[in-house]
Amino acid sequence: MNIVILAGGSGTRFWPLSRKKTPKQLMSVFGDKSMLQRTVERVLPLDPERILVVTNALQAEETRRQLADYESDAIFVVEEPLARNTAPAIGLAAAIIERQDPTSIMVVLPADHFIRDEEEFRATLRRAEAAAVNWNLVTLGIVPTGPETGYGYIEADQAHGVGGVLPVKRFVEKPLREKALEFVAAGNFFWNSGMFVWRNDVILDRLRTHMPDLWAGLSVLDIPAGLGRLSSMDEQVADLYGRIDGQSIDYGVMEKAEGVVVLPSSFGWSDVGSWSAVPEIMEAGLDGNIVIDESPVVSLDSSGCLVRGGDKVVALIGVQNLIVVDTGDALLICPRDRAQDVRKVTEELNARGMSELL
Amino acid sequence: MNIVILAGGSGTRFWPLSRKKTPKQLMSVFGDKSMLQRTVERVLPLDPERILVVTNALQAEETRRQLADYESDAIFVVEEPLARNTAPAIGLAAAIIERQDPTSIMVVLPADHFIRDEEEFRATLRRAEAAAVNWNLVTLGIVPTGPETGYGYIEADQAHGVGGVLPVKRFVEKPLREKALEFVAAGNFFWNSGMFVWRNDVILDRLRTHMPDLWAGLSVLDIPAGLGRLSSMDEQVADLYGRIDGQSIDYGVMEKAEGVVVLPSSFGWSDVGSWSAVPEIMEAGLDGNIVIDESPVVSLDSSGCLVRGGDKVVALIGVQNLIVVDTGDALLICPRDRAQDVRKVTEELNARGMSELL
Repeated sequence: MNIVILAGGSGTRFWPLSRKKTPKQLMSVFGDKSMLQRTVERVLPLDPERILVVTNALQAEETRRQLADYESDAIFVVEEPLARNTAPAIGLAAAIIERQDPTSIMVVLPADHFIRDEEEFRATLRRAEAAAVNWNLVTLGIVPTGPETGYGYIEADQAHGVGGVLPVKRFVEKPLREKALEFVAAGNFFWNSGMFVWRNDVILDRLRTHMPDLWAGLSVLDIPAGLGRLSSMDEQVADLYGRIDGQSIDYGVMEKAEGVVVLPSSFGWSDVGSWSAVPEIMEAGLDGNIVIDESPVVSLDSSGCLVRGGDKVVALIGVQNLIVVDTGDALLICPRDRAQDVRKVTEELNARGMSELL
Repeated sequence: MNIVILAGGSGTRFWPLSRKKTPKQLMSVFGDKSMLQRTVERVLPLDPERILVVTNALQAEETRRQLADYESDAIFVVEEPLARNTAPAIGLAAAIIERQDPTSIMVVLPADHFIRDEEEFRATLRRAEAAAVNWNLVTLGIVPTGPETGYGYIEADQAHGVGGVLPVKRFVEKPLREKALEFVAAGNFFWNSGMFVWRNDVILDRLRTHMPDLWAGLSVLDIPAGLGRLSSMDEQVADLYGRIDGQSIDYGVMEKAEGVVVLPSSFGWSDVGSWSAVPEIMEAGLDGNIVIDESPVVSLDSSGCLVRGGDKVVALIGVQNLIVVDTGDALLICPRDRAQDVRKVTEELNARGMSELL
């Protein structure tokens, strides 16, 4: 088994804690480990042959620094010259693995997701591995716990399941609430987690069919037999990335390919898409507020607040459900149900030329 | 004319900006000057003979530092060994002035008040001086601009005014709203500003009558003819302050003495009793928020907020009328109408043993 961790995202929705150089996956939202580190630690017990962490030039240094802690010779950093969404990142990883282990199983995991039950998560990956051996493209579909409108859904064909996986009828974009209620009631809709399991040769085959330009570029890369870096490969990748468009693996392959199946999964999952997702994941303290660092909080008639105070004491008087995030150079104050507007703040900072805060 | 500035207060209502060592009068709430410095600058055009700034041991160093800017040899710091409220502070100042200039006019001013129209303020003091020459104890009574429940009131006898001052019928504690409405409608009630003008020998005489223990102690102090410090005087003052109880000049003298008059005054005044008073004094910016320092603020759908961010950018999304004060080691978030509860935070910090933040 080879694990490919997609760690090149550049979200701004966790501003001011997330920055261009330290996006969500490199942040310590929960406790002292970053989300990338937690993702790595979550799969180490599976004893994978290799862990390829795909990132980009801007974040590579911090990514390498965080991974250095593990002293594992199974962990490799793959540096993309540009961000081109998930399909090229997965294709590049597949091209590299092909030289080492062409028929192995590849597990694709985003670096910035929350998973509560790690044992169940690993058991699920083992089940997915078994289903992927037979040429399936397995996507982990989270059994919905509510009518979420922030996730895409996967409709499965429950009548034709084999070996615990169900054929995918269609992928559905983030729905409106009414649709989401229907999906949850129907029972054969699952959240699209962005986690995939397949054989390395199978995903390359499907890329050849559905993304031939990308595949052609990948197939001629001068990849070394080991996982050391060759400057000629770097140049070739830069050239390829300059020619292709960004594309997600969902749109580029999964929505079109044969043999796409979903494995219903329940291990307590969230993509932690914004600050408002954090209170769903972390438990509140005795005073009813969620403090994500070690800041001392004095709360008077205040509850439901999400607090990150840096080292300072935070005094809350008579405020409810407020996000308070202090990073020393910036302070965000925002009701939990307005968290999606954090990106407007980053746009405004950009417009004011305060890009050092982004 | 001698000015006595009462600068020994230790309020906690401007926490986290105000601290034990830098209470409100030593803080820069508005702009770069502290309230004490503004108080001094406000009276310098009157060319007073002396300015005595009465403070206590804890704040003396910072007080001297702030006053050093003026390089005036008319400014003297009088250091009390303990805080004993206003009557002993005024008595001590009067005892010192008596050795220099026994029949001079003394103006008593708190160090932490806001005054909008400084020209009118000085003109008012000149009028008060004229009234005080004839043995009156003149208190400045602010013509109410609304039914404030945060101030004490002075009821005047409008039928017997002489020379612009009115005899005081009674002092009234902070009223409930209904009473305050009555007072404002009546037209002969004024806010008790805590600013007084009298002859130095007259206030000493009234102290002798109404606070004989204090007077007796003051009368035997070994005060040098100049305003240099004598260690024997320091010991005597420490001994006196150890024996007497704290008492306000209002309760100790003004409510009982003969010849107490009020001078109706209108110069745009506030005692700036808590954070909630600041928006009444400072104008909001174009985005509808009041920023009391130079912090850049990004405001989305937010207004009426009072912001002090230190140097950091403060992003407000969808919040109204919130007090946000960041001092690096502490952050306060509180609706404007809950500002009086800031003292509960300081009590809680004290209970938790976090007195370094007080």
